[in-house]
Amino acid sequence: MKTGFCKDTYCDASRIKIPVDSIGLNRGYAAFDFMKVVKSQPFYTERHLDRFFRTMSLLRIEIPFSREEVNSIIQELAQKNTDNYYGLKFFAVPVETAGSEYFPSDLYITPVKIPVHPDEIFTQGISLMTKEYARFLPEAKSTNYMPSILWGNELKKYHAFEILYCFNQQVLETSRSNIFIVSKNHVYTPGTNVLKGITRSIVIDLLHEKQIPFTEKQVSTSELFAADEVFITGTTKEIMPVVKIDGKTIGNGKVGPVSTPLIEAYQKLIR
Amino acid sequence: MKTGFCKDTYCDASRIKIPVDSIGLNRGYAAFDFMKVVKSQPFYTERHLDRFFRTMSLLRIEIPFSREEVNSIIQELAQKNTDNYYGLKFFAVPVETAGSEYFPSDLYITPVKIPVHPDEIFTQGISLMTKEYARFLPEAKSTNYMPSILWGNELKKYHAFEILYCFNQQVLETSRSNIFIVSKNHVYTPGTNVLKGITRSIVIDLLHEKQIPFTEKQVSTSELFAADEVFITGTTKEIMPVVKIDGKTIGNGKVGPVSTPLIEAYQKLIR
Repeated sequence: MKTGFCKDTYCDASRIKIPVDSIGLNRGYAAFDFMKVVKSQPFYTERHLDRFFRTMSLLRIEIPFSREEVNSIIQELAQKNTDNYYGLKFFAVPVETAGSEYFPSDLYITPVKIPVHPDEIFTQGISLMTKEYARFLPEAKSTNYMPSILWGNELKKYHAFEILYCFNQQVLETSRSNIFIVSKNHVYTPGTNVLKGITRSIVIDLLHEKQIPFTEKQVSTSELFAADEVFITGTTKEIMPVVKIDGKTIGNGKVGPVSTPLIEAYQKLIR
Repeated sequence: MKTGFCKDTYCDASRIKIPVDSIGLNRGYAAFDFMKVVKSQPFYTERHLDRFFRTMSLLRIEIPFSREEVNSIIQELAQKNTDNYYGLKFFAVPVETAGSEYFPSDLYITPVKIPVHPDEIFTQGISLMTKEYARFLPEAKSTNYMPSILWGNELKKYHAFEILYCFNQQVLETSRSNIFIVSKNHVYTPGTNVLKGITRSIVIDLLHEKQIPFTEKQVSTSELFAADEVFITGTTKEIMPVVKIDGKTIGNGKVGPVSTPLIEAYQKLIR
């Protein structure tokens, strides 16, 4: 049995269900987060709590738990579930949306498997395909993934691994990760109109640690295609080097000298 | 007990539940529809079936029932539930989205109360507030209502009844209904980038019946504010006259001579 958390109690995770006409399903409205647990240790809990509570604030969602209480629930789940490496999905789902400024909401947390990616992905790199799209309220991590699911079947057709959202010639984020570009040994990532990922923040820490010049700034699509290296970051994706976008080769088409040590440094954190 | 339909069987509607990490909740991805049942008669079933199957096709959602089978389920639910006036909510929720072009999905149908609006709404009219927004994949009736829920609390603040989405000076639709304008006794409604409602189609029938000149065309925001009359249409809203938008009075601020007989004609259909 995997242990989850349902409203106010720990429970068999497979039994966590919500009514089909819940606001979470009927109106596609819920706060979401996803964090890893590595060898019984929740990974970067504080940053995930920062983001989850920020998302709830942006969506005006209110759960009956303080940040400290949610932290305790996470610690408890990490003890109760004994897998070596898994994820915790967080949902805060409004019970009603009429009346008050904040929506009283239920908290659900459920453990899930994390896909293991083959080594080639990290040594040979992946391809992206672009779509002209900007997410609604991008700073909030919500359950609103419709375009990502809808366009998912094009990935196979175009031999791409992920969809990169661009809007008005600006690079934003992929459907489930952040993007960095490397140009003349300087690293850049968009800092507005994106969801700021936890892995993104860890990569920024690593860049500072390694004294690699880094700037958060708007990145144009022409800068993207002219980059020496590109990589994406996410909780399940870790740091994935990108060698092709829309069929065009990035840099020399190989995983580059800035990306490689970052990928290795990140993997050390989780293995 | 209210009777609903869950996957392959009729059941107590209050017991229809889905796993919290269902694609419907976790990814905000499901086809949706909503129809009325009036005195045990499903209202405009064929048009709702047209739209529900069109939504499923646009979202690449596939349920294990033909259109005729869903029609039979609707008829059966209308027999089993004895309220005089209620709604049926339809959800088609993917079971998985990997692999094939179409997503195998479960069908859920649940009866719900329809709010009764006070008479003054129809005799004195309502106010709208505008937002610069265009829905993603507007022709599909999905469960993607995030902006509508998020902005809902501004309605009270601005004494508005509904949010009107406009984009690039074009009038689109409200968060849950279609909009018509009347100018010099000619009626117009946007025909692209909107969800084409069933009540919208019934109003178009009524306009033809009453030989009122009608054109489906792009409507600019300046045409909107210069209109003699404005009304919105929806399954629960019926035909609601609009007398104010963003605090500006429409026409003479009263329910007009084109709207009134349409409102009456529609109400005759359902009472």
